[in-house]
Amino acid sequence: MTRIVLDAVGGDHAPAETIAGVALALQHGYLEPDEIILTGPEAMVRESARAAGLPDVVEICDAPDVLTAADSPTDALRRKRRNSIAVGMGLVKAGRAGGFVSAGSTGTVVAAATVGLRYLDGIRKACIAALIEGENNPFLVLDVGANPQPKPQHLAQFALMGSAYYGCQFGVESPRVGVLNIGSEDKKGSPLVLEARRLMQDMPIAFHGNVEGVEVFSGDCHVVVTDGFSGNVLLKTSEGVAEYLLRTTFQAMGEAGIAPEQIRAVQRAVMPRVDFSETGGALLLGVEGVVTICHGRSRAPAFANALRFARKALQGKVNEHIVKAAQELNLGAPDDEHDERGQPAI
Amino acid sequence: MTRIVLDAVGGDHAPAETIAGVALALQHGYLEPDEIILTGPEAMVRESARAAGLPDVVEICDAPDVLTAADSPTDALRRKRRNSIAVGMGLVKAGRAGGFVSAGSTGTVVAAATVGLRYLDGIRKACIAALIEGENNPFLVLDVGANPQPKPQHLAQFALMGSAYYGCQFGVESPRVGVLNIGSEDKKGSPLVLEARRLMQDMPIAFHGNVEGVEVFSGDCHVVVTDGFSGNVLLKTSEGVAEYLLRTTFQAMGEAGIAPEQIRAVQRAVMPRVDFSETGGALLLGVEGVVTICHGRSRAPAFANALRFARKALQGKVNEHIVKAAQELNLGAPDDEHDERGQPAI
Repeated sequence: MTRIVLDAVGGDHAPAETIAGVALALQHGYLEPDEIILTGPEAMVRESARAAGLPDVVEICDAPDVLTAADSPTDALRRKRRNSIAVGMGLVKAGRAGGFVSAGSTGTVVAAATVGLRYLDGIRKACIAALIEGENNPFLVLDVGANPQPKPQHLAQFALMGSAYYGCQFGVESPRVGVLNIGSEDKKGSPLVLEARRLMQDMPIAFHGNVEGVEVFSGDCHVVVTDGFSGNVLLKTSEGVAEYLLRTTFQAMGEAGIAPEQIRAVQRAVMPRVDFSETGGALLLGVEGVVTICHGRSRAPAFANALRFARKALQGKVNEHIVKAAQELNLGAPDDEHDERGQPAI
Repeated sequence: MTRIVLDAVGGDHAPAETIAGVALALQHGYLEPDEIILTGPEAMVRESARAAGLPDVVEICDAPDVLTAADSPTDALRRKRRNSIAVGMGLVKAGRAGGFVSAGSTGTVVAAATVGLRYLDGIRKACIAALIEGENNPFLVLDVGANPQPKPQHLAQFALMGSAYYGCQFGVESPRVGVLNIGSEDKKGSPLVLEARRLMQDMPIAFHGNVEGVEVFSGDCHVVVTDGFSGNVLLKTSEGVAEYLLRTTFQAMGEAGIAPEQIRAVQRAVMPRVDFSETGGALLLGVEGVVTICHGRSRAPAFANALRFARKALQGKVNEHIVKAAQELNLGAPDDEHDERGQPAI
């Protein structure tokens, strides 16, 4: 099943930019028109789709409840059940699509996915994996926000999922996995990190040890494991620093009398390295289905790339690789939190 | 007491660069020669001082035990008691100096300070406060590494200390204080942050609410409060991203055929914004004495600036401002961890 649902009304610039993103994805041949399902208030989405010249074969699935920034994930799932995110997740759950892409509230997407979709066999916590362009190679940071306070065994599962995901998507046999820490010494760090390190050392992954913030972008780790709070700080801070520094630098170039066409040449060389829209989205790993979370500020090219990205994850059978890796491993005692959901405890 | 102790043998480039830093500080008139005390193995430090032409009036206090990267803070304090950090802290404790500056192991400096020096009245946890150049104003991030897992009341104390410090050092009457979080919504974040927010809202500070990583560098907060793990990730990641992006950009400028003198002009405009040596150090707030922690990679200009920075904190009576702010406030129930040290519990 390679159909992908796109939340047509998620993000700051929806639905105009989501629909334009679909048009762009079709134009580039990332997907066929019958491989896309849009969710959102039907009349509004249909009108946008027509205005953008999308073929009629692009399916629209009505989701009349409109979420606002004031709706918490709980509100969204309890009071507005027929919202574009919940409806989209329902299509994945029902097997009508393999993936779901949204630039809506991250909290709501995570909540809808963990409530609506089963955890993968052997996995007891989902995490958001962001792919970032580094100096030497792209690297994966996980978790970047789903779990602000995970347990050590959750970090170990993130390591396993990150390694399996990176391996199958980039053809790297044993991706180097590091744990984000505040020093290079073995004994350094919080109790969470120390215990997670101990678990990771015994796992069938290429465990590299500690990685410090300063070496994440220029080091040689493919996968950087951390809790959702620190990972979010890493991701957002790097975004903020990059924007600020490049803005300052390009301004200084103008003041130094450098010609506009030379400035543009430098921008063309550097900007793709920091442009989140090049990847398009981050994957929620650990649930059945390929759930892709886009930046709220996404525009058409980002949505097109997110559709391509989700498609690649589906075709690469990321979840099968994760389940296989989890089977090779006993990840520890059952977790109270998820036994009650009737998940197989390994 | 405005004398300052410098750990002559701390840092990757000691003692050559520490001593050269003193020479630079004297040359710039940041301090007088009789206001500096150097710690380290006496003969070695004396030889370096002579070679650099330091006046004989610069005092050298013998610290024969040499620390290596393999020594943990515990090793340093138990087995090598006469090391340059412990001896320096002893001079502050004895009232022979008001401040201590070191580029040695951060963990050892923090341990030596919290064991050797009293907490300020009303404070029960020390934290490292890093001053960073932002787009609109310099801002303070604390804690950047002393406490990877603090309690909410500790974060509240960091907020208080950061506000008092920023206020007296930058002449800002009510510095805007934010708490680092992974979303802008009030309900977002870890239990630690949610409870710390609740405490900060009731404090006599200009509390701004959540700050996300993306807005730290370009936003309008003067003080950003967080745990030592996330703060360290913020600090180190921003350093790593800045180095990587500027390296990439300057290389792209060369490839775009921009003249070397124009590249240098841009570097002169941008580099000071990301150069840690401009400030020279981060303050360990919360203990009696001005303890300044320098980057391990510091060279002479960084040490000179760190001495100027410590001097400014001493002259600005930072600790008196913190104690006064703490007196205006009841920071909650006594903390088991420190009652046993006989500290006044407010």
